[in-house]
Amino acid sequence: MNPELYILGSSSANPTRERNPTSQILKIGSEKIMIDCGEGAQMRLMQFGIRQTGIDYICISHLHGDHYFGLIGLISTMSLMGRKQMLHIIAPAPLKNIIDLQILHGIMHIHFEIKFHPTNPNVPEFILKTQSFELSSFPLKHRIHCTGFLIKEGKKERHLNMQAIDKHEVPVAFYKSIKTGKNYIAENGTEVLNKELTLDPTPIRSYAYCSDTIFDPTIVPYIKDVNLLYHETTYLHNLAQKAAERFHSTAKEAGIIAKMANVGKLLIGHFSSRYDNLQPLLEEARVEFTPTELAIEGLKIEI
Amino acid sequence: MNPELYILGSSSANPTRERNPTSQILKIGSEKIMIDCGEGAQMRLMQFGIRQTGIDYICISHLHGDHYFGLIGLISTMSLMGRKQMLHIIAPAPLKNIIDLQILHGIMHIHFEIKFHPTNPNVPEFILKTQSFELSSFPLKHRIHCTGFLIKEGKKERHLNMQAIDKHEVPVAFYKSIKTGKNYIAENGTEVLNKELTLDPTPIRSYAYCSDTIFDPTIVPYIKDVNLLYHETTYLHNLAQKAAERFHSTAKEAGIIAKMANVGKLLIGHFSSRYDNLQPLLEEARVEFTPTELAIEGLKIEI
Repeated sequence: MNPELYILGSSSANPTRERNPTSQILKIGSEKIMIDCGEGAQMRLMQFGIRQTGIDYICISHLHGDHYFGLIGLISTMSLMGRKQMLHIIAPAPLKNIIDLQILHGIMHIHFEIKFHPTNPNVPEFILKTQSFELSSFPLKHRIHCTGFLIKEGKKERHLNMQAIDKHEVPVAFYKSIKTGKNYIAENGTEVLNKELTLDPTPIRSYAYCSDTIFDPTIVPYIKDVNLLYHETTYLHNLAQKAAERFHSTAKEAGIIAKMANVGKLLIGHFSSRYDNLQPLLEEARVEFTPTELAIEGLKIEI
Repeated sequence: MNPELYILGSSSANPTRERNPTSQILKIGSEKIMIDCGEGAQMRLMQFGIRQTGIDYICISHLHGDHYFGLIGLISTMSLMGRKQMLHIIAPAPLKNIIDLQILHGIMHIHFEIKFHPTNPNVPEFILKTQSFELSSFPLKHRIHCTGFLIKEGKKERHLNMQAIDKHEVPVAFYKSIKTGKNYIAENGTEVLNKELTLDPTPIRSYAYCSDTIFDPTIVPYIKDVNLLYHETTYLHNLAQKAAERFHSTAKEAGIIAKMANVGKLLIGHFSSRYDNLQPLLEEARVEFTPTELAIEGLKIEI
C-alpha cells in the first residue's frame, strides 16, 4: 500500500471557525508519523477516526505555537491511555525544556520514554531510519529555527518473477533471500542470477514538507523529484511583499518551487485567516504548477 | 444584568469526541473572566460566538493540562489580533515560567502586559477587585497545588425611591450621591435621610468554582450561600474509592457539598471520558440536591 497523508489542520497562526492550526499524519508501511501538532490536533485525530496508537514519531518544524501547542496535550492523553511504547520527537532542541517543565509542574507520570532528536537549522541531516521509512530534515528560511522534513519509503523487496521461478523449479524456502537480491544456487550447483528470477520493486515513494518558509529556491535540491510536496502558501501573490517580510510564501511561489523541483504533486496549506475562500490560492498555484491541491482538513491523499 | 456563565468545555483529563477539556467564561458587569483554559478553548470561543476582546482576567485552578494547555494559544492569538490591554492571569506561580519559556523560544512579540497573580494553595486569599467584581481563591485538595475561585459582584448602588424623591423635590444633580448612600440636604438646610429616599440595591450575585477536588467539606465556609456553585463530578458514586484515590469527587458528593453550603444552584462537570450518557450523573447529584444542572458545552446560565 502506498503511503497516505491525512490533513488535520491547515490554518496559519490564527485558527478560524473552519480551519485549525497545522498538523498532518503520514501513514507509511505499518507506521504513523505526525508532522507538526498545532493546538487541538488530538481532537482532530478523534474527529477523523485516526487512532493515536501507532504514532511513534512526531516531527515539529519550528516553535511557533500554531505548529506545536497541541503536543503536550497529546503526550498527556497518550500517557493516560496507557502508552508504554517509546515516542520519538524530532524538533528544535528547546522543545525538550518546554515539555519537561510542563511534565514537572503538572506532576505528570509519563510511563513511556520520549526520545528527542534535535533538528539542525543550518544543514540537511539524516534523522532516523525504520522498517518503513527514512526521515531527514533540511533547513527552511523562517523567522526562527525551522526545518522541513523529507520522508522516503525504506528499501523495498524485489518482486518474484513466478514464470522464471517455476521454470527453474526454485523451492519456496529460497523466495525470501531471492526477494532481497540474492542469486539461486540449485542442488546440482547451477547458479541462476537474481535478475533472471525477479522484477524491479515498486518504486520508492517520497514526501517533502515545507512549512514555514520564505520563497527560497535553495531548498530545491532537498525536495527534488518527490512524489508529493507540501509547501506553505500563507498569502496570494498580491501580498508578496508582506509574505517576504514575514518569511512566508505566496501560492504562486509555492507553484514555482514545485515546478523547479519537478515534484509529482503539490499540496498547499497554512492559509492566512484572511481567506475564507481558498479557490484563488489554488488557481494561482495551478498557473505555475497544474497538479496542485488544497490541504483541506480531513483530506486523505495517497502518495 | 445578572452575571452569565458560558461553558466552553466540561471533560476531565481526556477530551472526547463531544467534550473538550475544562474552560468557562463568566460575563459580569462589563467584564469577562475566563476560568480554566483547556486545549482548544480559543476555538470554542469562536464556535460559541464569544469575542476574546474583554477577557482581561484568566483564572487557572491548577497545572494539570486539561485546565491550562489552551492558554498559550489564546495568548498568542490575542497578540496577533493586536491586543494592547493588560491581561491578568491568576494561577499557580510556575505557570509564569512555562508561558515565558514558550514566548522566548517562539520569539513571540507580545504587545500587552501580562500581570501574574500567584495563587496560594494553603489559605483563602483575596486576589483583586474591579468595577464589576471581587475575586478570591481558596484551597482545594487535589493531587497538586489547586485552588477554587469565588467571584462576587462588586458593591451595587441603592435604587432611588422616585415617590420619595418627588415628594422632597430632590434635584437630579443629587441622584448620584444619594445612590451611593448619602443623605440629601435641601437649600433651606433640611436633611432627608438616605433610607427615606432609596430602596435596597439588587442583591449581589456570587459564583464559586471548585475543580478539581476530592470530597472535602472543609471548603463549605468558602462557598456558603453562593447563587451558583460549579463542582467537579468526575465519577458516579459507585467509583467513590477511585475518585478518592485520584483526588476527584462523585456526583453524589458534589450534591452533598451543594446542600451543606446552601447554594442556590449546582452545576456539575469535569466528567470522565468513560461516560457517554451524563444523565446518571445528573440524577445521582439531584438525589442530594435538586436544583442541579449539567455543564454541557455551549450552555449559558444566568447567575
